Amino acid sequence: MKNFLNKKVNYINSALKEFLPKDNSIISKGMRYSVLAGGKRLRPIFLILSAELFGGKSHDVLPAACAIEYIHTYSLIHDDLPAMDNDDWRRGIPTNHKKFGEAVAILCGDALLTESFSLILKSKSSPKNINEAIRILSNYAGYRGMIMGQVKDTLLIKDLYNNSTKMFLKRKLKLIQIQKTSALIIASLRMGAILAGADKNSLQILETYGTDIGIAFQITDDILDVYGNENFFNEKSNDLKNKKLTALSLYGKKNATKKAYEYIEKAKKAISVFGSKSKIFIRIAEHIIDMTH
Amino acid sequence: MKNFLNKKVNYINSALKEFLPKDNSIISKGMRYSVLAGGKRLRPIFLILSAELFGGKSHDVLPAACAIEYIHTYSLIHDDLPAMDNDDWRRGIPTNHKKFGEAVAILCGDALLTESFSLILKSKSSPKNINEAIRILSNYAGYRGMIMGQVKDTLLIKDLYNNSTKMFLKRKLKLIQIQKTSALIIASLRMGAILAGADKNSLQILETYGTDIGIAFQITDDILDVYGNENFFNEKSNDLKNKKLTALSLYGKKNATKKAYEYIEKAKKAISVFGSKSKIFIRIAEHIIDMTH
Repeated sequence: MKNFLNKKVNYINSALKEFLPKDNSIISKGMRYSVLAGGKRLRPIFLILSAELFGGKSHDVLPAACAIEYIHTYSLIHDDLPAMDNDDWRRGIPTNHKKFGEAVAILCGDALLTESFSLILKSKSSPKNINEAIRILSNYAGYRGMIMGQVKDTLLIKDLYNNSTKMFLKRKLKLIQIQKTSALIIASLRMGAILAGADKNSLQILETYGTDIGIAFQITDDILDVYGNENFFNEKSNDLKNKKLTALSLYGKKNATKKAYEYIEKAKKAISVFGSKSKIFIRIAEHIIDMTH
Repeated sequence: MKNFLNKKVNYINSALKEFLPKDNSIISKGMRYSVLAGGKRLRPIFLILSAELFGGKSHDVLPAACAIEYIHTYSLIHDDLPAMDNDDWRRGIPTNHKKFGEAVAILCGDALLTESFSLILKSKSSPKNINEAIRILSNYAGYRGMIMGQVKDTLLIKDLYNNSTKMFLKRKLKLIQIQKTSALIIASLRMGAILAGADKNSLQILETYGTDIGIAFQITDDILDVYGNENFFNEKSNDLKNKKLTALSLYGKKNATKKAYEYIEKAKKAISVFGSKSKIFIRIAEHIIDMTH
Protein backbone atom coordinates (compact mmCIF):
# COMPACT_ATOMS: atom_id res chain seq x y z
CA MET A 1 0.00 0.00 0.00
CA LYS A 2 2.76 2.45 0.91
CA ASN A 3 4.51 1.62 -2.35
CA PHE A 4 1.33 2.16 -4.32
CA LEU A 5 0.72 5.54 -2.70
CA ASN A 6 4.36 6.62 -3.07
CA LYS A 7 4.22 5.93 -6.79
CA LYS A 8 1.08 8.01 -7.15
CA VAL A 9 2.60 10.82 -5.09
CA ASN A 10 5.70 10.89 -7.32
CA TYR A 11 3.52 10.89 -10.43
CA ILE A 12 1.51 13.84 -9.12
CA ASN A 13 4.59 15.73 -7.92
CA SER A 14 6.16 15.50 -11.39
CA ALA A 15 2.99 16.88 -12.94
CA LEU A 16 2.79 19.70 -10.39
CA LYS A 17 6.38 20.70 -11.21
CA GLU A 18 5.49 20.74 -14.89
CA PHE A 19 2.32 22.83 -14.48
CA LEU A 20 3.64 25.38 -11.95
CA PRO A 21 5.02 28.67 -13.34
CA LYS A 22 8.76 28.57 -13.88
CA ASP A 23 9.67 32.27 -13.88
CA ASN A 24 11.60 34.03 -11.13
CA SER A 25 8.91 36.44 -9.96
CA ILE A 26 8.28 36.34 -6.22
CA ILE A 27 4.71 35.17 -6.79
CA SER A 28 5.80 32.18 -8.88
CA LYS A 29 8.47 31.33 -6.31
CA GLY A 30 5.84 31.48 -3.58
CA MET A 31 3.47 29.23 -5.52
CA ARG A 32 6.20 26.64 -6.08
CA TYR A 33 7.41 26.90 -2.48
CA SER A 34 4.06 25.92 -0.97
CA VAL A 35 2.79 23.48 -3.58
CA LEU A 36 6.07 21.56 -3.68
CA ALA A 37 6.57 21.54 0.12
CA GLY A 38 5.33 17.96 0.22
CA GLY A 39 2.04 16.52 1.30
CA LYS A 40 0.10 13.31 1.00
CA ARG A 41 -1.59 14.36 -2.28
CA LEU A 42 -4.70 12.59 -0.99
CA ARG A 43 -7.11 14.70 -3.05
CA PRO A 44 -5.39 14.30 -6.44
CA ILE A 45 -4.98 10.58 -5.74
CA PHE A 46 -8.72 10.32 -5.10
CA LEU A 47 -9.46 12.26 -8.29
CA ILE A 48 -7.31 9.93 -10.40
CA LEU A 49 -8.65 6.73 -8.78
CA SER A 50 -12.19 7.95 -9.23
CA ALA A 51 -11.61 8.59 -12.95
CA GLU A 52 -10.03 5.13 -13.27
CA LEU A 53 -13.04 3.60 -11.51
CA PHE A 54 -15.14 4.68 -14.50
CA GLY A 55 -12.66 3.75 -17.20
CA GLY A 56 -10.80 7.07 -17.41
CA LYS A 57 -7.03 7.37 -17.83
CA SER A 58 -4.94 8.97 -15.12
CA HIS A 59 -3.01 11.08 -17.64
CA ASP A 60 -6.22 12.62 -19.02
CA VAL A 61 -7.34 13.93 -15.63
CA LEU A 62 -3.90 14.85 -14.30
CA PRO A 63 -4.43 18.61 -14.80
CA ALA A 64 -7.67 18.46 -12.79
CA ALA A 65 -5.86 16.40 -10.11
CA CYS A 66 -3.20 19.10 -9.84
CA ALA A 67 -5.88 21.80 -9.82
CA ILE A 68 -7.42 20.32 -6.68
CA GLU A 69 -3.99 20.26 -5.03
CA TYR A 70 -3.63 23.97 -5.92
CA ILE A 71 -6.94 24.59 -4.15
CA HIS A 72 -5.83 22.59 -1.10
CA THR A 73 -2.51 24.47 -0.98
CA TYR A 74 -4.11 27.91 -1.36
CA SER A 75 -6.46 27.09 1.52
CA LEU A 76 -3.50 26.15 3.73
CA ILE A 77 -1.58 29.33 2.83
CA HIS A 78 -4.55 31.53 3.71
CA ASP A 79 -5.44 29.49 6.84
CA ASP A 80 -1.90 29.92 8.14
CA LEU A 81 -2.05 33.73 7.93
CA PRO A 82 -1.79 35.73 11.18
CA ALA A 83 -5.41 36.87 10.80
CA MET A 84 -6.50 33.22 10.66
CA ASP A 85 -4.68 30.37 12.46
CA ASN A 86 -1.38 32.31 12.70
CA ASP A 87 0.90 29.33 12.08
CA ASP A 88 4.66 29.75 11.55
CA TRP A 89 5.39 26.23 10.37
CA ARG A 90 3.83 23.91 7.84
CA ARG A 91 5.24 20.57 6.70
CA GLY A 92 8.53 21.22 8.49
CA ILE A 93 9.30 24.53 6.79
CA PRO A 94 8.23 28.14 7.47
CA THR A 95 4.71 28.97 6.27
CA ASN A 96 4.39 31.00 3.08
CA HIS A 97 3.87 34.31 4.91
CA LYS A 98 6.83 33.65 7.22
CA LYS A 99 9.01 33.10 4.18
CA PHE A 100 7.66 35.73 1.75
CA GLY A 101 5.63 38.13 3.89
CA GLU A 102 1.88 38.45 4.30
CA ALA A 103 1.15 40.39 1.12
CA VAL A 104 2.83 37.78 -1.07
CA ALA A 105 1.17 34.95 0.86
CA ILE A 106 -2.31 36.42 0.27
CA LEU A 107 -1.53 36.90 -3.42
CA CYS A 108 0.07 33.44 -3.78
CA GLY A 109 -3.11 31.90 -2.43
CA ASP A 110 -5.20 34.01 -4.81
CA ALA A 111 -2.96 33.03 -7.72
CA LEU A 112 -3.21 29.29 -7.00
CA LEU A 113 -6.98 29.55 -6.63
CA THR A 114 -7.31 31.49 -9.89
CA GLU A 115 -4.88 29.26 -11.80
CA SER A 116 -6.62 26.05 -10.71
CA PHE A 117 -9.55 26.79 -13.02
CA SER A 118 -7.47 27.17 -16.18
CA LEU A 119 -5.52 24.07 -15.16
CA ILE A 120 -8.72 21.97 -15.16
CA LEU A 121 -9.27 23.05 -18.77
CA LYS A 122 -6.16 21.12 -19.77
CA SER A 123 -7.83 17.82 -18.84
CA LYS A 124 -8.86 15.56 -21.69
CA SER A 125 -12.64 15.28 -21.63
CA SER A 126 -15.61 16.88 -23.39
CA PRO A 127 -16.11 20.65 -22.89
CA LYS A 128 -19.41 19.80 -21.19
CA ASN A 129 -17.77 17.44 -18.67
CA ILE A 130 -15.00 19.96 -18.04
CA ASN A 131 -17.60 22.64 -17.32
CA GLU A 132 -19.26 20.27 -14.88
CA ALA A 133 -15.92 19.61 -13.15
CA ILE A 134 -15.44 23.37 -12.79
CA ARG A 135 -18.92 23.70 -11.31
CA ILE A 136 -18.13 20.96 -8.77
CA LEU A 137 -14.83 22.52 -7.73
CA SER A 138 -16.30 26.00 -7.43
CA ASN A 139 -19.26 24.75 -5.39
CA TYR A 140 -17.41 22.47 -2.98
CA ALA A 141 -14.42 24.79 -2.49
CA GLY A 142 -16.54 27.93 -2.20
CA TYR A 143 -18.75 29.60 0.36
CA ARG A 144 -21.19 26.66 0.45
CA GLY A 145 -18.34 24.22 1.19
CA MET A 146 -14.73 24.54 2.25
CA ILE A 147 -14.74 28.29 2.83
CA MET A 148 -17.86 28.07 5.01
CA GLY A 149 -16.16 25.33 7.03
CA GLN A 150 -13.15 27.56 7.48
CA VAL A 151 -15.30 30.50 8.57
CA LYS A 152 -16.99 28.40 11.24
CA ASP A 153 -13.70 26.87 12.29
CA THR A 154 -12.05 30.27 12.68
CA LEU A 155 -14.82 32.20 14.33
CA LEU A 156 -16.83 29.90 16.51
CA ILE A 157 -14.36 28.93 19.17
CA LYS A 158 -16.01 30.29 22.28
CA ASP A 159 -19.36 31.50 21.08
CA LEU A 160 -20.72 28.07 20.29
CA TYR A 161 -20.39 26.72 23.79
CA ASN A 162 -22.70 29.11 25.53
CA ASN A 163 -26.21 27.82 25.93
CA SER A 164 -25.69 24.92 23.56
CA THR A 165 -26.85 21.40 24.17
CA LYS A 166 -24.46 18.58 23.42
CA MET A 167 -26.84 17.40 20.67
CA PHE A 168 -26.60 20.83 19.01
CA LEU A 169 -22.80 20.79 19.24
CA LYS A 170 -22.62 17.30 17.75
CA ARG A 171 -24.67 18.35 14.75
CA LYS A 172 -22.63 21.54 14.38
CA LEU A 173 -19.35 19.62 14.57
CA LYS A 174 -20.40 17.19 11.87
CA LEU A 175 -21.32 20.05 9.54
CA ILE A 176 -17.96 21.76 10.16
CA GLN A 177 -16.11 18.50 9.49
CA ILE A 178 -18.02 17.94 6.25
CA GLN A 179 -17.55 21.49 4.98
CA LYS A 180 -13.95 21.88 6.11
CA THR A 181 -12.55 18.51 5.06
CA SER A 182 -15.06 16.27 3.31
CA ALA A 183 -16.02 18.95 0.77
CA LEU A 184 -12.72 18.92 -1.12
CA ILE A 185 -12.46 15.12 -0.96
CA ILE A 186 -15.98 14.80 -2.39
CA ALA A 187 -15.07 17.36 -5.07
CA SER A 188 -12.00 15.27 -6.02
CA LEU A 189 -14.06 12.09 -6.32
CA ARG A 190 -16.88 13.76 -8.24
CA MET A 191 -14.53 15.60 -10.61
CA GLY A 192 -12.62 12.44 -11.52
CA ALA A 193 -15.88 10.57 -12.07
CA ILE A 194 -17.48 13.32 -14.18
CA LEU A 195 -14.38 13.73 -16.37
CA ALA A 196 -14.51 9.97 -17.03
CA GLY A 197 -18.23 10.14 -17.82
CA ALA A 198 -19.75 8.50 -14.73
CA ASP A 199 -23.52 8.32 -14.19
CA LYS A 200 -25.44 10.26 -11.54
CA ASN A 201 -26.11 7.25 -9.32
CA SER A 202 -22.41 6.55 -8.95
CA LEU A 203 -21.78 10.15 -7.96
CA GLN A 204 -24.07 9.74 -4.97
CA ILE A 205 -22.08 6.73 -3.73
CA LEU A 206 -18.85 8.69 -4.06
CA GLU A 207 -20.45 11.53 -2.12
CA THR A 208 -21.20 9.21 0.80
CA TYR A 209 -17.73 7.65 0.72
CA GLY A 210 -16.05 11.08 0.55
CA THR A 211 -18.17 12.49 3.37
CA ASP A 212 -17.30 9.66 5.77
CA ILE A 213 -13.62 9.51 4.78
CA GLY A 214 -13.39 13.28 5.30
CA ILE A 215 -14.89 13.09 8.80
CA ALA A 216 -12.61 10.18 9.80
CA PHE A 217 -9.62 12.09 8.44
CA GLN A 218 -10.54 15.28 10.31
CA ILE A 219 -11.11 13.45 13.62
CA THR A 220 -7.70 11.79 13.38
CA ASP A 221 -6.09 15.08 12.38
CA ASP A 222 -7.61 16.83 15.39
CA ILE A 223 -6.39 14.13 17.76
CA LEU A 224 -2.87 14.26 16.35
CA ASP A 225 -2.88 18.05 16.44
CA VAL A 226 -3.23 17.93 20.20
CA TYR A 227 -1.23 14.79 20.96
CA GLY A 228 1.57 16.07 18.76
CA ASN A 229 1.83 19.14 20.94
CA GLU A 230 2.02 18.25 24.63
CA ASN A 231 1.94 21.83 25.88
CA PHE A 232 -1.27 22.62 24.16
CA PHE A 233 -2.76 19.38 25.39
CA ASN A 234 -1.74 19.86 28.97
CA GLU A 235 -2.84 23.43 29.13
CA LYS A 236 -6.13 23.39 27.39
CA SER A 237 -7.46 19.95 26.74
CA ASN A 238 -9.94 20.12 29.56
CA ASP A 239 -11.09 23.62 28.93
CA LEU A 240 -13.80 23.32 26.33
CA LYS A 241 -14.50 27.03 26.25
CA ASN A 242 -11.05 28.07 25.09
CA LYS A 243 -10.79 25.60 22.28
CA LYS A 244 -12.14 24.88 18.87
CA LEU A 245 -15.08 22.57 18.46
CA THR A 246 -13.44 19.28 17.46
CA ALA A 247 -14.19 15.62 17.94
CA LEU A 248 -11.48 15.55 20.60
CA SER A 249 -12.88 18.44 22.62
CA LEU A 250 -16.42 17.14 22.33
CA TYR A 251 -15.97 13.37 22.75
CA GLY A 252 -12.54 12.88 24.34
CA LYS A 253 -9.74 10.84 22.79
CA LYS A 254 -11.12 7.35 23.23
CA ASN A 255 -14.58 8.03 21.88
CA ALA A 256 -13.28 10.27 19.10
CA THR A 257 -11.01 7.46 17.88
CA LYS A 258 -13.93 5.07 18.03
CA LYS A 259 -15.98 7.51 15.92
CA ALA A 260 -13.19 7.71 13.33
CA TYR A 261 -13.24 3.94 12.92
CA GLU A 262 -17.04 3.96 12.65
CA TYR A 263 -16.89 6.45 9.78
CA ILE A 264 -14.21 4.37 8.06
CA GLU A 265 -16.49 1.34 8.22
CA LYS A 266 -19.37 3.39 6.83
CA ALA A 267 -17.19 4.61 3.96
CA LYS A 268 -16.04 1.06 3.14
CA LYS A 269 -19.59 -0.20 3.10
CA ALA A 270 -20.77 2.58 0.79
CA ILE A 271 -18.02 2.11 -1.78
CA SER A 272 -18.22 -1.69 -1.78
CA VAL A 273 -21.18 -1.59 -4.19
CA PHE A 274 -18.61 -1.13 -6.97
CA GLY A 275 -17.44 -4.70 -6.29
CA SER A 276 -13.85 -5.65 -7.07
CA LYS A 277 -13.13 -2.15 -8.42
CA SER A 278 -13.71 -0.70 -4.96
CA LYS A 279 -10.74 -2.58 -3.44
CA ILE A 280 -8.30 0.32 -3.64
CA PHE A 281 -10.85 2.69 -2.11
CA ILE A 282 -11.39 0.27 0.76
CA ARG A 283 -7.66 -0.04 1.34
CA ILE A 284 -7.24 3.73 1.37
CA ALA A 285 -10.10 3.99 3.87
CA GLU A 286 -8.30 1.49 6.13
CA HIS A 287 -5.09 3.44 5.64
CA ILE A 288 -6.57 6.90 6.29
CA ILE A 289 -5.55 6.99 9.95
CA ASP A 290 -1.91 6.38 9.00
CA MET A 291 -2.17 9.04 6.29
CA THR A 292 -2.81 11.83 8.77
CA HIS A 293 0.59 11.24 10.40
CA MET B 1 -24.22 59.07 -21.95
CA LYS B 2 -24.76 59.25 -18.20
CA ASN B 3 -28.30 57.99 -18.67
CA PHE B 4 -27.08 55.13 -20.81
CA LEU B 5 -24.47 54.11 -18.24
CA ASN B 6 -26.89 54.47 -15.31
CA LYS B 7 -29.35 52.12 -17.01
CA LYS B 8 -26.61 49.55 -17.52
CA VAL B 9 -25.43 49.93 -13.91
CA ASN B 10 -28.96 49.34 -12.61
CA TYR B 11 -29.34 46.30 -14.86
CA ILE B 12 -26.07 44.83 -13.54
CA ASN B 13 -26.86 45.69 -9.92
CA SER B 14 -30.19 43.83 -10.14
CA ALA B 15 -28.41 40.78 -11.53
CA LEU B 16 -25.71 40.93 -8.84
CA LYS B 17 -28.40 41.01 -6.14
CA GLU B 18 -30.02 37.97 -7.72
CA PHE B 19 -26.80 35.95 -8.02
CA LEU B 20 -25.29 36.75 -4.60
CA PRO B 21 -25.96 34.30 -1.75
CA LYS B 22 -28.98 35.27 0.32
CA ASP B 23 -28.34 33.43 3.58
CA ASN B 24 -27.38 35.07 6.86
CA SER B 25 -23.91 33.59 7.31
CA ILE B 26 -21.20 36.15 7.93
CA ILE B 27 -19.42 35.17 4.72
CA SER B 28 -22.55 35.78 2.59
CA LYS B 29 -23.14 39.08 4.37
CA GLY B 30 -19.55 40.08 3.64
CA MET B 31 -19.86 39.15 -0.03
CA ARG B 32 -23.03 41.20 -0.41
CA TYR B 33 -21.58 44.12 1.58
CA SER B 34 -18.63 44.61 -0.76
CA VAL B 35 -20.19 43.69 -4.10
CA LEU B 36 -23.24 45.90 -3.51
CA ALA B 37 -21.26 48.84 -2.11
CA GLY B 38 -21.59 50.57 -5.47
CA GLY B 39 -19.08 51.09 -8.23
CA LYS B 40 -19.03 52.04 -11.85
CA ARG B 41 -19.49 48.44 -13.06
CA LEU B 42 -17.13 49.35 -15.92
CA ARG B 43 -15.95 45.76 -16.45
CA PRO B 44 -19.39 44.11 -16.67
CA ILE B 45 -20.55 46.95 -18.95
CA PHE B 46 -17.61 46.27 -21.25
CA LEU B 47 -18.36 42.54 -21.21
CA ILE B 48 -22.00 43.11 -22.22
CA LEU B 49 -21.17 45.70 -24.89
CA SER B 50 -18.52 43.44 -26.32
CA ALA B 51 -21.00 40.56 -26.60
CA GLU B 52 -23.52 42.89 -28.24
CA LEU B 53 -20.85 44.03 -30.71
CA PHE B 54 -20.83 40.48 -32.09
CA GLY B 55 -24.58 39.92 -32.04
CA GLY B 56 -24.82 38.48 -28.51
CA LYS B 57 -27.65 39.28 -26.10
CA SER B 58 -26.91 41.06 -22.84
CA HIS B 59 -29.10 38.65 -20.86
CA ASP B 60 -27.13 35.62 -22.10
CA VAL B 61 -23.80 36.95 -20.84
CA LEU B 62 -25.10 38.58 -17.65
CA PRO B 63 -23.71 35.81 -15.37
CA ALA B 64 -20.24 36.25 -16.89
CA ALA B 65 -20.58 40.02 -16.51
CA CYS B 66 -21.37 39.59 -12.81
CA ALA B 67 -18.51 37.09 -12.48
CA ILE B 68 -16.00 39.71 -13.59
CA GLU B 69 -17.45 42.15 -11.05
CA TYR B 70 -16.95 39.45 -8.36
CA ILE B 71 -13.30 39.24 -9.43
CA HIS B 72 -12.90 43.01 -9.33
CA THR B 73 -14.51 43.17 -5.88
CA TYR B 74 -12.42 40.32 -4.44
CA SER B 75 -9.25 42.07 -5.64
CA LEU B 76 -10.33 45.29 -3.88
CA ILE B 77 -11.13 43.44 -0.62
CA HIS B 78 -7.71 41.77 -0.58
CA ASP B 79 -5.88 44.93 -1.72
CA ASP B 80 -7.43 46.88 1.15
CA LEU B 81 -6.11 44.45 3.80
CA PRO B 82 -3.59 45.73 6.38
CA ALA B 83 -0.86 43.53 4.86
CA MET B 84 -1.48 45.16 1.46
CA ASP B 85 -2.64 48.79 1.04
CA ASN B 86 -4.15 48.99 4.54
CA ASP B 87 -7.17 51.07 3.59
CA ASP B 88 -9.99 51.76 6.06
CA TRP B 89 -12.48 53.19 3.59
CA ARG B 90 -13.75 52.15 0.19
CA ARG B 91 -16.63 53.77 -1.71
CA GLY B 92 -17.60 55.85 1.30
CA ILE B 93 -18.05 52.95 3.72
CA PRO B 94 -15.61 50.94 5.91
CA THR B 95 -13.57 48.37 3.98
CA ASN B 96 -14.59 44.73 4.35
CA HIS B 97 -11.95 43.94 6.99
CA LYS B 98 -12.85 47.06 8.99
CA LYS B 99 -16.47 45.92 9.05
CA PHE B 100 -16.08 42.14 9.44
CA GLY B 101 -12.48 41.58 10.58
CA GLU B 102 -9.46 40.39 8.63
CA ALA B 103 -10.25 36.66 8.65
CA VAL B 104 -13.68 37.18 7.14
CA ALA B 105 -12.31 39.67 4.60
CA ILE B 106 -9.72 37.17 3.39
CA LEU B 107 -12.37 34.44 3.14
CA CYS B 108 -14.93 36.77 1.48
CA GLY B 109 -12.38 37.55 -1.21
CA ASP B 110 -11.64 33.85 -1.65
CA ALA B 111 -15.35 33.08 -1.84
CA LEU B 112 -16.04 35.71 -4.52
CA LEU B 113 -13.06 34.50 -6.55
CA THR B 114 -14.15 30.86 -6.27
CA GLU B 115 -17.81 31.62 -6.97
CA SER B 116 -17.03 33.69 -10.07
CA PHE B 117 -16.14 30.54 -12.01
CA SER B 118 -19.42 28.74 -11.36
CA LEU B 119 -21.24 31.98 -12.14
CA ILE B 120 -19.72 32.10 -15.66
CA LEU B 121 -21.18 28.63 -16.27
CA LYS B 122 -24.68 30.11 -16.06
CA SER B 123 -24.06 32.13 -19.24
CA LYS B 124 -25.88 31.03 -22.38
CA SER B 125 -23.29 29.93 -24.90
CA SER B 126 -21.72 26.70 -26.13
CA PRO B 127 -19.76 24.64 -23.55
CA LYS B 128 -16.65 25.26 -25.68
CA ASN B 129 -17.08 29.04 -25.62
CA ILE B 130 -17.74 28.95 -21.89
CA ASN B 131 -14.53 26.94 -21.42
CA GLU B 132 -12.69 29.62 -23.35
CA ALA B 133 -14.24 32.42 -21.26
CA ILE B 134 -13.05 30.65 -18.11
CA ARG B 135 -9.56 30.32 -19.56
CA ILE B 136 -9.51 34.06 -20.33
CA LEU B 137 -10.66 35.06 -16.85
CA SER B 138 -8.21 32.74 -15.12
CA ASN B 139 -5.30 33.93 -17.26
CA TYR B 140 -5.93 37.67 -17.11
CA ALA B 141 -6.92 37.71 -13.42
CA GLY B 142 -4.13 35.35 -12.34
CA TYR B 143 -0.41 35.49 -11.74
CA ARG B 144 0.33 36.42 -15.36
CA GLY B 145 -2.07 39.37 -15.17
CA MET B 146 -3.86 41.22 -12.41
CA ILE B 147 -2.18 39.46 -9.49
CA MET B 148 1.28 40.08 -10.93
CA GLY B 149 0.38 43.76 -11.33
CA GLN B 150 -0.71 43.84 -7.70
CA VAL B 151 2.51 42.15 -6.55
CA LYS B 152 4.63 44.74 -8.34
CA ASP B 153 2.42 47.56 -7.14
CA THR B 154 2.66 46.41 -3.50
CA LEU B 155 6.30 45.50 -3.29
CA LEU B 156 8.28 47.71 -5.57
CA ILE B 157 7.86 51.07 -4.00
CA LYS B 158 11.41 51.94 -3.10
CA ASP B 159 13.44 49.18 -4.65
CA LEU B 160 12.71 50.15 -8.22
CA TYR B 161 14.16 53.59 -7.98
CA ASN B 162 17.69 52.68 -7.14
CA ASN B 163 19.99 52.53 -10.13
CA SER B 164 17.12 52.69 -12.62
CA THR B 165 17.11 54.83 -15.74
CA LYS B 166 13.95 56.79 -16.55
CA MET B 167 13.55 54.66 -19.69
CA PHE B 168 13.55 51.50 -17.53
CA LEU B 169 11.00 52.99 -15.15
CA LYS B 170 8.73 54.05 -18.02
CA ARG B 171 8.68 50.52 -19.39
CA LYS B 172 8.13 49.08 -15.92
CA LEU B 173 5.27 51.49 -15.23
CA LYS B 174 3.49 50.60 -18.47
CA LEU B 175 3.71 46.90 -17.62
CA ILE B 176 2.30 47.50 -14.11
CA GLN B 177 -0.56 49.57 -15.54
CA ILE B 178 -1.38 46.88 -18.07
CA GLN B 179 -1.26 44.03 -15.57
CA LYS B 180 -2.96 45.87 -12.73
CA THR B 181 -5.77 47.58 -14.63
CA SER B 182 -5.87 46.73 -18.33
CA ALA B 183 -5.82 42.96 -17.73
CA LEU B 184 -9.32 42.73 -16.27
CA ILE B 185 -10.75 45.18 -18.83
CA ILE B 186 -9.24 43.11 -21.66
CA ALA B 187 -10.65 39.97 -20.01
CA SER B 188 -14.13 41.56 -19.92
CA LEU B 189 -13.97 42.49 -23.61
CA ARG B 190 -12.58 39.12 -24.68
CA MET B 191 -15.05 37.13 -22.59
CA GLY B 192 -18.06 38.99 -24.00
CA ALA B 193 -16.74 38.56 -27.54
CA ILE B 194 -15.98 34.83 -27.12
CA LEU B 195 -19.36 34.08 -25.55
CA ALA B 196 -20.98 35.75 -28.57
CA GLY B 197 -18.79 33.78 -30.99
CA ALA B 198 -16.38 36.49 -32.21
CA ASP B 199 -13.44 35.67 -34.51
CA LYS B 200 -9.78 35.80 -33.47
CA ASN B 201 -8.98 38.94 -35.45
CA SER B 202 -11.62 40.91 -33.58
CA LEU B 203 -10.20 39.75 -30.26
CA GLN B 204 -6.88 41.39 -31.09
CA ILE B 205 -8.59 44.73 -31.73
CA LEU B 206 -10.38 44.47 -28.38
CA GLU B 207 -7.06 43.66 -26.71
CA THR B 208 -5.55 46.91 -28.03
CA TYR B 209 -8.59 48.96 -27.05
CA GLY B 210 -8.68 47.41 -23.56
CA THR B 211 -4.97 47.91 -23.00
CA ASP B 212 -5.09 51.62 -23.82
CA ILE B 213 -8.34 52.27 -21.96
CA GLY B 214 -6.86 50.52 -18.92
CA ILE B 215 -3.72 52.65 -18.95
CA ALA B 216 -5.73 55.88 -19.37
CA PHE B 217 -8.02 54.80 -16.54
CA GLN B 218 -5.11 53.99 -14.22
CA ILE B 219 -3.28 57.26 -14.93
CA THR B 220 -6.42 59.26 -14.11
CA ASP B 221 -7.03 57.16 -11.01
CA ASP B 222 -3.48 57.80 -9.79
CA ILE B 223 -3.83 61.53 -10.31
CA LEU B 224 -7.14 61.64 -8.45
CA ASP B 225 -5.75 59.49 -5.67
CA VAL B 226 -3.20 62.16 -4.87
CA TYR B 227 -5.24 65.27 -5.67
CA GLY B 228 -8.10 63.88 -3.64
CA ASN B 229 -5.82 63.71 -0.64
CA GLU B 230 -3.99 66.95 -0.11
CA ASN B 231 -1.85 65.75 2.79
CA PHE B 232 -0.38 62.90 0.87
CA PHE B 233 0.29 65.19 -2.07
CA ASN B 234 1.91 67.92 -0.03
CA GLU B 235 4.06 65.60 1.96
CA LYS B 236 5.33 63.22 -0.60
CA SER B 237 4.69 64.31 -4.13
CA ASN B 238 8.29 65.36 -4.68
CA ASP B 239 9.85 62.40 -2.97
CA LEU B 240 9.96 59.77 -5.64
CA LYS B 241 11.67 57.24 -3.38
CA ASN B 242 8.86 57.04 -0.85
CA LYS B 243 6.10 56.57 -3.33
CA LYS B 244 4.69 54.04 -5.67
CA LEU B 245 5.68 54.07 -9.30
CA THR B 246 2.75 55.85 -10.97
CA ALA B 247 2.31 58.08 -13.99
CA LEU B 248 2.00 61.00 -11.58
CA SER B 249 5.22 60.30 -9.71
CA LEU B 250 7.12 59.63 -12.94
CA TYR B 251 5.75 62.29 -15.29
CA GLY B 252 4.12 64.92 -13.06
CA LYS B 253 0.47 65.96 -13.27
CA LYS B 254 0.51 67.89 -16.56
CA ASN B 255 2.36 65.28 -18.59
CA ALA B 256 0.50 62.38 -16.98
CA THR B 257 -2.83 63.93 -17.98
CA LYS B 258 -1.49 64.44 -21.50
CA LYS B 259 -0.51 60.77 -21.60
CA ALA B 260 -3.99 59.70 -20.50
CA TYR B 261 -5.53 61.62 -23.40
CA GLU B 262 -3.02 60.10 -25.82
CA TYR B 263 -4.03 56.58 -24.76
CA ILE B 264 -7.71 57.47 -25.11
CA GLU B 265 -7.07 58.59 -28.69
CA LYS B 266 -5.16 55.36 -29.40
CA ALA B 267 -8.04 53.30 -27.98
CA LYS B 268 -10.60 55.18 -30.09
CA LYS B 269 -8.55 54.67 -33.24
CA ALA B 270 -8.16 50.93 -32.60
CA ILE B 271 -11.86 50.27 -32.00
CA SER B 272 -13.04 52.45 -34.91
CA VAL B 273 -12.39 49.60 -37.39
CA PHE B 274 -15.75 48.19 -36.27
CA GLY B 275 -17.42 51.18 -37.98
CA SER B 276 -20.76 52.43 -36.69
CA LYS B 277 -20.88 49.64 -34.08
CA SER B 278 -17.84 51.11 -32.36
CA LYS B 279 -19.65 54.35 -31.44
CA ILE B 280 -20.49 53.34 -27.87
CA PHE B 281 -16.90 52.20 -27.24
CA ILE B 282 -15.61 55.54 -28.53
CA ARG B 283 -18.00 57.43 -26.28
CA ILE B 284 -16.95 55.38 -23.24
CA ALA B 285 -13.31 56.07 -24.09
CA GLU B 286 -14.06 59.80 -24.15
CA HIS B 287 -15.96 59.41 -20.89
CA ILE B 288 -13.30 57.36 -19.09
CA ILE B 289 -11.73 60.33 -17.31
CA ASP B 290 -15.10 61.26 -15.81
CA MET B 291 -15.66 57.62 -14.82
CA THR B 292 -12.70 57.56 -12.45
CA HIS B 293 -14.32 60.28 -10.31
